[in-house]
Amino acid sequence: MTSQNLTNISEIGEFNLINRLTKNVHIQHSETLKGIGDDAAVVNYGNKKQVITTDLLVEGIHFNLSYTPLKHLGYKAVAVNLSDVYAMNAIPLHITVSIAVSSRFTVEALDELYDGIKAACKKYKVDLIGGDTTSSIKGLVISITAIGIVPESGYVLRSGAKENNLICLSGNVGAAYMGLQLLEREKAIFEQNPEAQPQLHGYDYILQRQLKPEPRADLIEFLYSNNIVPTAMIDVSDGLSSEILHICQNSNTGCEIYEDRIPIAEETASMAYELNMEPLLAALNGGEDYELLFTINIADYEKIKDSKLFSIIGNITSAEKGTYIVDKNDNVIPLNSTGYQAFNN
Amino acid sequence: MTSQNLTNISEIGEFNLINRLTKNVHIQHSETLKGIGDDAAVVNYGNKKQVITTDLLVEGIHFNLSYTPLKHLGYKAVAVNLSDVYAMNAIPLHITVSIAVSSRFTVEALDELYDGIKAACKKYKVDLIGGDTTSSIKGLVISITAIGIVPESGYVLRSGAKENNLICLSGNVGAAYMGLQLLEREKAIFEQNPEAQPQLHGYDYILQRQLKPEPRADLIEFLYSNNIVPTAMIDVSDGLSSEILHICQNSNTGCEIYEDRIPIAEETASMAYELNMEPLLAALNGGEDYELLFTINIADYEKIKDSKLFSIIGNITSAEKGTYIVDKNDNVIPLNSTGYQAFNN
Repeated sequence: MTSQNLTNISEIGEFNLINRLTKNVHIQHSETLKGIGDDAAVVNYGNKKQVITTDLLVEGIHFNLSYTPLKHLGYKAVAVNLSDVYAMNAIPLHITVSIAVSSRFTVEALDELYDGIKAACKKYKVDLIGGDTTSSIKGLVISITAIGIVPESGYVLRSGAKENNLICLSGNVGAAYMGLQLLEREKAIFEQNPEAQPQLHGYDYILQRQLKPEPRADLIEFLYSNNIVPTAMIDVSDGLSSEILHICQNSNTGCEIYEDRIPIAEETASMAYELNMEPLLAALNGGEDYELLFTINIADYEKIKDSKLFSIIGNITSAEKGTYIVDKNDNVIPLNSTGYQAFNN
Repeated sequence: MTSQNLTNISEIGEFNLINRLTKNVHIQHSETLKGIGDDAAVVNYGNKKQVITTDLLVEGIHFNLSYTPLKHLGYKAVAVNLSDVYAMNAIPLHITVSIAVSSRFTVEALDELYDGIKAACKKYKVDLIGGDTTSSIKGLVISITAIGIVPESGYVLRSGAKENNLICLSGNVGAAYMGLQLLEREKAIFEQNPEAQPQLHGYDYILQRQLKPEPRADLIEFLYSNNIVPTAMIDVSDGLSSEILHICQNSNTGCEIYEDRIPIAEETASMAYELNMEPLLAALNGGEDYELLFTINIADYEKIKDSKLFSIIGNITSAEKGTYIVDKNDNVIPLNSTGYQAFNN
């Protein structure tokens, strides 16, 4: 498609593209505490620190309206942004929502979308304060910016993990990915035979995880009330293995993850077996879980050991030791990122 | 296209759609000083007030890449957001930039776009602190959120105009619209005859106003240094007549505008005559000028009368008197909004 001197976006990948486009960005204000490169930016206006994060969701890339109800989509679009705010150890207070829609959408369809947006705002106590509404040539685009407040205990970056820290993960992983596989299977069946009824019974949990994820506000509250400040934190949007590697790369550490500690829900495993997939791969590489992955000082262990909100899945090592997963037979396997990258499509 | 019970977006228009979608939005936080309904939202984090504004720009709706250089587009995308911050009487400090691009764009094309974004950030001393980069099915989408700081003298809404206030307008209007008409004319000629060379000579000013508008930071600095706080302010993005009506409706006032006071650049008028258009109509209804329209107390007249940055174009009256323009022959003509509305396309 391109001449000798020009580069296709797909040749360099999403992360390299972002690095290239933002490499000469100079910070000019002392109010900017953290710019590009974490779940959110951190700014300091007066005596309160804030985090700011933004996401752009495009029909056909990030969501498929043939099986995504618009109300769920609105809810999820807000939820994924709030997840980034929580991943900074902050509390979301404000969002803006912009949409571009083609003329195929009715006003009633947009009512549905906004019902979901407002439901998420209500549940997570966030004020919708602005946005932009415009037309598109084709399809639906949603852009959300979320702003949150940093507590007295401070914000948490990806880069603070230290040797011997415990690696913790809220909830379980792989469920959203298996929910997506189920929806894709039923869509393919329906396309071959429009009379077919979707077989979704018994899979409520993984469908909910895909269609209506909940950001982990409860975990942040638990950490606050137990006076625990993680040393590093990230939300699991692109797949657990990819997020672990982000923490290790940004913190300049290695890690040791125990396969048998990775939390996988029963429904996730049974759907995986039904589709002849290995549940562990869904757990490591499936995206959109919106759980929180964080590291804590081992001194905090006593405070957390009885919590059911998260699991300890491994520990941080020195960078020289590398990034590894230890399987059930004590085999040590290098951990590689094969998580979702938007431009691999 | 829609059944009896469903409503096409085009049937209700952009402003009604926004009102409908946001009608049940409840503000839950005392930190939210102004939500939806002005150039930007105003929030109060700690001891500093901030304004937040966002725009979504879609290829084929808001820009045409056949005559818009990507570097200019990047610059303009930032500029239009900063204009909204200035329109609140605030100073922009931070932006986030998200883009969705199809595979037809090369990395080098995106370098151009970001060169323009960074140039605007440098000129207006704004830090680029985050964003999202993803693929699209078709075309380019740019979403920018700008955050600014409110000075001690306070922020300015659309709703504060009072009877007998002077109505002021920075710079001149209609130029960006005539620049667009010129570009569209040359595009049409080129499409009929690809050998034709574009005839853009002598029209630098109106082209610059369309392709690379500058937000009026200089006016805000003038107001600050002269201790003038406008009673109401808005930026001219959808056309002067539409913005005047926004101020009058939000402030519950009328207005009297003098046709011969409306500033129109010579190049704007000569392009209009060349295309057999009335310059006044371009000035009143053409969009994208990004000038500032504001109202001030008559007591501030002495401080401003020698400034070349803006013109006094009329005065605020009581709501009962209505909204009028007085033409050169002293005819009084009702002022109607026929400004740009995205869904009229």
